[in-house]
Amino acid sequence: MSEELKMPFLDRCSALAQRIEAPVIDGLMREALSRPGILSLGAGFTDNALLPVEEVAEVIAELNQSQISREHLQYGTNQGRLGLRSAIAQWMRHYPNEEAVVSADQIVITNGSQQGLYLNVQFLCNPGDIVLVEAPSYFIFLEMLRGMGVHAVSLPQDDAGEIDYEAFAEMVAQWKARGEIQRVKLIYLVSYFANPSTRCWSFESKQMLGDFLNEAQLPWPVVEDAAYRDLSFERDYPVPSLLSVESFQGRPVLYAGTFTKPYATGIKVGYLISSTQEWITGLLRIKAHHDFGTANLNQAIIERVLESGRYAKHLERIRRVYAAKLRELQDCLVESGLKDLGWDWMPPEGGLLLWVRGPHDLDTGLDSVFCKKCLEHDVLYVPGDICFAEGNPRHFVRLSVGLLSGESLKEAVKRFTKAAQEAAIHY
Amino acid sequence: MSEELKMPFLDRCSALAQRIEAPVIDGLMREALSRPGILSLGAGFTDNALLPVEEVAEVIAELNQSQISREHLQYGTNQGRLGLRSAIAQWMRHYPNEEAVVSADQIVITNGSQQGLYLNVQFLCNPGDIVLVEAPSYFIFLEMLRGMGVHAVSLPQDDAGEIDYEAFAEMVAQWKARGEIQRVKLIYLVSYFANPSTRCWSFESKQMLGDFLNEAQLPWPVVEDAAYRDLSFERDYPVPSLLSVESFQGRPVLYAGTFTKPYATGIKVGYLISSTQEWITGLLRIKAHHDFGTANLNQAIIERVLESGRYAKHLERIRRVYAAKLRELQDCLVESGLKDLGWDWMPPEGGLLLWVRGPHDLDTGLDSVFCKKCLEHDVLYVPGDICFAEGNPRHFVRLSVGLLSGESLKEAVKRFTKAAQEAAIHY
Repeated sequence: MSEELKMPFLDRCSALAQRIEAPVIDGLMREALSRPGILSLGAGFTDNALLPVEEVAEVIAELNQSQISREHLQYGTNQGRLGLRSAIAQWMRHYPNEEAVVSADQIVITNGSQQGLYLNVQFLCNPGDIVLVEAPSYFIFLEMLRGMGVHAVSLPQDDAGEIDYEAFAEMVAQWKARGEIQRVKLIYLVSYFANPSTRCWSFESKQMLGDFLNEAQLPWPVVEDAAYRDLSFERDYPVPSLLSVESFQGRPVLYAGTFTKPYATGIKVGYLISSTQEWITGLLRIKAHHDFGTANLNQAIIERVLESGRYAKHLERIRRVYAAKLRELQDCLVESGLKDLGWDWMPPEGGLLLWVRGPHDLDTGLDSVFCKKCLEHDVLYVPGDICFAEGNPRHFVRLSVGLLSGESLKEAVKRFTKAAQEAAIHY
Repeated sequence: MSEELKMPFLDRCSALAQRIEAPVIDGLMREALSRPGILSLGAGFTDNALLPVEEVAEVIAELNQSQISREHLQYGTNQGRLGLRSAIAQWMRHYPNEEAVVSADQIVITNGSQQGLYLNVQFLCNPGDIVLVEAPSYFIFLEMLRGMGVHAVSLPQDDAGEIDYEAFAEMVAQWKARGEIQRVKLIYLVSYFANPSTRCWSFESKQMLGDFLNEAQLPWPVVEDAAYRDLSFERDYPVPSLLSVESFQGRPVLYAGTFTKPYATGIKVGYLISSTQEWITGLLRIKAHHDFGTANLNQAIIERVLESGRYAKHLERIRRVYAAKLRELQDCLVESGLKDLGWDWMPPEGGLLLWVRGPHDLDTGLDSVFCKKCLEHDVLYVPGDICFAEGNPRHFVRLSVGLLSGESLKEAVKRFTKAAQEAAIHY
């Protein structure tokens, strides 16, 4: 056998196969599974009690009655059901100040928003390219970029999340000087109740970013991830998407939405919207190879849920519950004395996450003393460092109220604070 | 603005984006949509009348009752439900002569078998690599390879589909001589009622391929696509998968199955099985980035359909119907006089396709006179040339009985034969 053919299996596989690593929280999850009494403030699951199981059964019964062609169990199209895309276009019009008129042919249905993000990086980036992200950003997206050999670089931002345009201009100047500017392929923003920061972009901040890019003559496309937009506690957040912001007109913008988190995590229907036809066409060509369309049943369910007004009603209900649970989490944290240990946070106005800043010297990373203490006390969180492209700062944690409530939430907070107390001795 | 930044949007996108083309039958489909009276013998759809719409509603009601945790609408795991994977492992044991014992941890659940094939090419191949395919092979797979920049090369086969091992050895010798042998990454076989040839691989043919690869010391992994295996007309086809063939023991083999075609095309649940742990691990890492797991609802439905014995019962029913429809198609073709025009075929023993050989001089390609005649007469088929890696021979067509039956099937055949008569004048 020639030498090449004697290589181990993995060495004969693709560059992607050799580059891609296990998910960063794999070890933590394995550890968690070995401890049956563990309480998770980490998992991004939604609340089981809020899952619309009876409603979905009802919807399917209605589909069976109304669809004499039985087509909801047949193949659909690659782009997705016209009825669903029309209903999404309609849904977009209900947001306050959303002036852009979206049509069904500008929409692609995906397997959750995750597939949308993946297709999009495949469409835009070669290995070695650069994507600009927020600090912090969605850690699954950062992990995906690493797997695809793409470099994430943080936008220079202040503590409130506002971009430091002087520093940004300096970054751009350096890329130009090094002849690397063409490696930058995309800006990725999470703009409503962001995972993990829970921050929303203001209208002025959006407008300003567009103005800067235009003035600096930077043609970069922008992806706006709006996964948590529908989980606003009070009313719909008043800031429109980039599709409606004047300074982004003429620039390729892709809006990523989903029904996974706000309706049912087990149904996994997401969507992409763009006014740039080449972008839609290109994404569709890649999606045709992935799966030639998201499962038609799932689309038909969401289509009917939207059209029948059930989606809006479902949101009313879950918004109240998540708001209450997040208040409860914060009350528990205060009562447990976490703030006295130097921890703090901004109260979120939507979503199901809390982004908590620990004492400046604390390391919350996977290998840290604090993380080990939490595991000892059977409580899980998401370490903040994995949410930063550069891996720092390291003193944040992301907590979630998806899984726990009532006594178990109280108990989890007690354990978390105990670990924080014990870890405080070490720094 | 620098010159690079003035480039059109698409020119700034990835190599993949610039390479990938519209699906080859896009033009045909668009043409079809503009003709409301058209009858399709082309579409790979299943029969609407056979879709288990009442049963799926029943299954969901049962899930709602039995799953007190409501977890079927919650996120699942990346690899897929343990219950479904166990049920698939159990299902594998029911096939005759299938001696390999598959365990749940060797199985990955995918969005139909299409995603499985895509993940697998991502895992094994870089652009420029070579995949060996049958002649003919599944045209969607060939198209996917082109999009990914991978070259498909046909195995040398005789008219019955048996491999010509002398010619194969010669191909291998040439790759070695040119230093290109390491570009060959995979052999892809469609082994049961293949799309499009409807051929099944015999036990001896499988054993012989393994022997050849072993003797030639070729370490190539093999993907066995068994998408139509459960659509056997009589009883389960007696030949086991490569997982159970002795000459493939020790070689990386990936088996791709699906419930899309045999149960419901709108649910899209497929699966991959491999005894090579690195292969499973690698596929899972890529799938985590695609979507972190197939929609849990779809998996829960199929799990219950399998466990409750409904799947086996469903197969009994649809096998009878497809067998009858394919007999009807063949009867109509004979009655219409197609054989007198020099056309012929092998009667299939499973599936829903008929692979028909036209007169040797006929061209059935998308731009051919024959194809135009068929469109004029409002009837569609899949041109055979797109099913060959090298684009020839060009005198085959793939017909399907998925969509049509009774009078519409008769009418479609009448139109097809009329086109064949008119095209016969041109050669």
